[in-house]
Amino acid sequence: MFQISPGIQQSDFLKEPAKFIGQDVDFKGVIFKYKAMGNFAFLQVTTLHGILQVIYEGAPLKEGAATHVFGQVRPASIKDPFISSPEIEIVASKIVTLSSPSMPMPFDITKKDLNINNDILFDQRMLSMRHPKQKAIFKIQEGLVQGLRNYFIAHDLTEIRTPKIVKEGAEGGANIFSLDYFGQKAYLAQSPQFYKEFCTGVFERVFEIGPVFRAEKHNTSRHINEYTSIDVEIGNITSFHEIMQFEVGALQAAFKYLKENYAYTARLLKLEIPEVNSIPSMKFSECKELLKTKYNMDFTTEPDLSPGEEQKICEHVKQETGSEFVFITHYPSAKRPFYAMDDVENIEETVSFDLLFRGVEITTGGQRIHDYETIVAKMNRRGMNPINFEFFTQAHKYGLLPHGGFGLGLERLTQKIVGLESVKLATMFPRDIGRLSP
Amino acid sequence: MFQISPGIQQSDFLKEPAKFIGQDVDFKGVIFKYKAMGNFAFLQVTTLHGILQVIYEGAPLKEGAATHVFGQVRPASIKDPFISSPEIEIVASKIVTLSSPSMPMPFDITKKDLNINNDILFDQRMLSMRHPKQKAIFKIQEGLVQGLRNYFIAHDLTEIRTPKIVKEGAEGGANIFSLDYFGQKAYLAQSPQFYKEFCTGVFERVFEIGPVFRAEKHNTSRHINEYTSIDVEIGNITSFHEIMQFEVGALQAAFKYLKENYAYTARLLKLEIPEVNSIPSMKFSECKELLKTKYNMDFTTEPDLSPGEEQKICEHVKQETGSEFVFITHYPSAKRPFYAMDDVENIEETVSFDLLFRGVEITTGGQRIHDYETIVAKMNRRGMNPINFEFFTQAHKYGLLPHGGFGLGLERLTQKIVGLESVKLATMFPRDIGRLSP
Repeated sequence: MFQISPGIQQSDFLKEPAKFIGQDVDFKGVIFKYKAMGNFAFLQVTTLHGILQVIYEGAPLKEGAATHVFGQVRPASIKDPFISSPEIEIVASKIVTLSSPSMPMPFDITKKDLNINNDILFDQRMLSMRHPKQKAIFKIQEGLVQGLRNYFIAHDLTEIRTPKIVKEGAEGGANIFSLDYFGQKAYLAQSPQFYKEFCTGVFERVFEIGPVFRAEKHNTSRHINEYTSIDVEIGNITSFHEIMQFEVGALQAAFKYLKENYAYTARLLKLEIPEVNSIPSMKFSECKELLKTKYNMDFTTEPDLSPGEEQKICEHVKQETGSEFVFITHYPSAKRPFYAMDDVENIEETVSFDLLFRGVEITTGGQRIHDYETIVAKMNRRGMNPINFEFFTQAHKYGLLPHGGFGLGLERLTQKIVGLESVKLATMFPRDIGRLSP
Repeated sequence: MFQISPGIQQSDFLKEPAKFIGQDVDFKGVIFKYKAMGNFAFLQVTTLHGILQVIYEGAPLKEGAATHVFGQVRPASIKDPFISSPEIEIVASKIVTLSSPSMPMPFDITKKDLNINNDILFDQRMLSMRHPKQKAIFKIQEGLVQGLRNYFIAHDLTEIRTPKIVKEGAEGGANIFSLDYFGQKAYLAQSPQFYKEFCTGVFERVFEIGPVFRAEKHNTSRHINEYTSIDVEIGNITSFHEIMQFEVGALQAAFKYLKENYAYTARLLKLEIPEVNSIPSMKFSECKELLKTKYNMDFTTEPDLSPGEEQKICEHVKQETGSEFVFITHYPSAKRPFYAMDDVENIEETVSFDLLFRGVEITTGGQRIHDYETIVAKMNRRGMNPINFEFFTQAHKYGLLPHGGFGLGLERLTQKIVGLESVKLATMFPRDIGRLSP
């Protein structure tokens, strides 16, 4: 028997190229750009850690070819915004081709900006993502996830994994995909809501970062039919303010993580990473009143905020406080799901919140009902049959601690951080009413 | 406007209770066990960081109640295996009830072992998971994920998010759930295979930890219909041995992480965390030959290993080398998907592997075809129509670097680490042919 030992080749050079000036190096990378200059060529080579400039005298090479480059490091002669180590370049003595494309790319990914329409962008996602600025969007997304997750883990939240094929939808309604499950009708989970509440009774604090599915027929810049929900649920809270405080801390941590670890990517995208010290908060009713008084938007009888209202209130808060985030609290009970806790001071309102960022809602959260009699009474008041939700209220019946949480839409957060016109552009392989592929 | 500042209450005491002997403390927790002793009671209270022993003189309290405990820490008087800080106990001066169950639990979760049958265990998962040994399974699962993921991130793999509603299945065949997607036929992803291969052309090294769906009708201890796949794909490899080496390193890191961070849980489950230095490897054909010669199991014409054969070969390897893991390499081309790379020395075999652990396959991996002409030729040889896979081979056509990877089943790994009789027991909310709820 043969023995397989651990390890995978890692190149120290690629991590800190500037430390290798004057030295012979070799590394692997894909030719991103090939520019013939007479008797030599400028190459940009994509490596695991960024794009390097290579000077090469030799037979022409194809863009898109995977190569093994041998050469010497020297201070850079010319600079390009895509180059991740602008201080150095490599004078190649030999370049070995490892794989070669059959055809040149259908569009030019070496241009400063990839000016193709969104249909082509998404149809050819496996290719368009190779553009440095497209790739950068998903590196930022990765950074947001890692920053948030590190914060969750540091605060002792247990990472849970809940089923995506379910018998009941958490939100109910028509916006749910159904499928045949060995002869039973099943659904794709709209949210891990019920499961994460169960899990507070086990682990006290939990999170899940995973896909959720909404069969909404809207085809807007705000919607996708499959997205990543960052779900948090925390037990032993005394108020929903603790949930909001936790989210503020998590966002601060994520933005700090981005600043510390994604400098090249942030530069490429000209990112404006928000400063968060604290986040202003106003009641839903105050917000409606303000929109009416200041902007003459009179939808005070509507139990929710429209996209237009969300935009206006964000503008207002930014003007008044400088904050790009705002919490809207105390949403009407009528508009919130049955498990939302009503405010003891006004049962028409819930102890809940949305978080708006740069004009769009990125989070819904709040405290939940933990008491069995209270949740059954609320279902009865709403004309719901508690029998249908017995699997959910089992947890309450046998004791559930006071708890609350939130769901944060990863793609919307990414979209607004990067400044993209649509949430679809912040999704690797978006799904909308007309798009199921790739 | 009100300002929400970051932070959530964290109790230093709960993290290191033994440091607080002689001090007044207060903390929140759920009464796990209440044992009246005449004029006082022994309580076990579940907190965010474990179970503490509390001595209390006062009105009786309900098991399952959420409480706020005030008291003084002193050295422990009696010990119980569930107590996570056996050195200390708290003499309570006051206990405030925060929430209270409506009914006592339908089974006793305070017993050393939860002796209920699996149907009740799963039907009442929100309750049965409250048993410390059930909960412990998922803490170990969390630790495995975190240990593996930390290794992936440290080795510069980009975390990707691929769609679960897809137009085409990666594995094909009948084992795929279908659904109506706004009038189009869609499927639930069996694997992120195609997407992770695309992504090596963008990020070079990628991973995803997410749900996959298999409509297999088997109802065995080895199968669930929704599971967590830990997917890795790495570009610029020179051989599939590098993928195996990477997996060895990742497993080592995960086991080290468990040992360092889950001592209480490991003790509770009497866990035998394997020692991994290197992992033996044998060819599929040698393995078949050995099974025939040594065990008289003559299935040499079958292009795959049966569960019985996997068990036997694990026994053999453990006897011969002490290793609980074994790589089986060079699976027959006939049994591997079209994208698997054939061995240049014998095109009847692929440069692929399975990893077996304690009698069961936990990983399938290998090198993939990166060259466009090669993959089209292989599809043609198999009678597949390359047109149907154009969305996949686009990546190859325009240049894809040499790459390979693996998929590791999280629940099977957890099952075998913990020593559970079925993979379902390593799943919070399992899905099988007869189970869709909770």
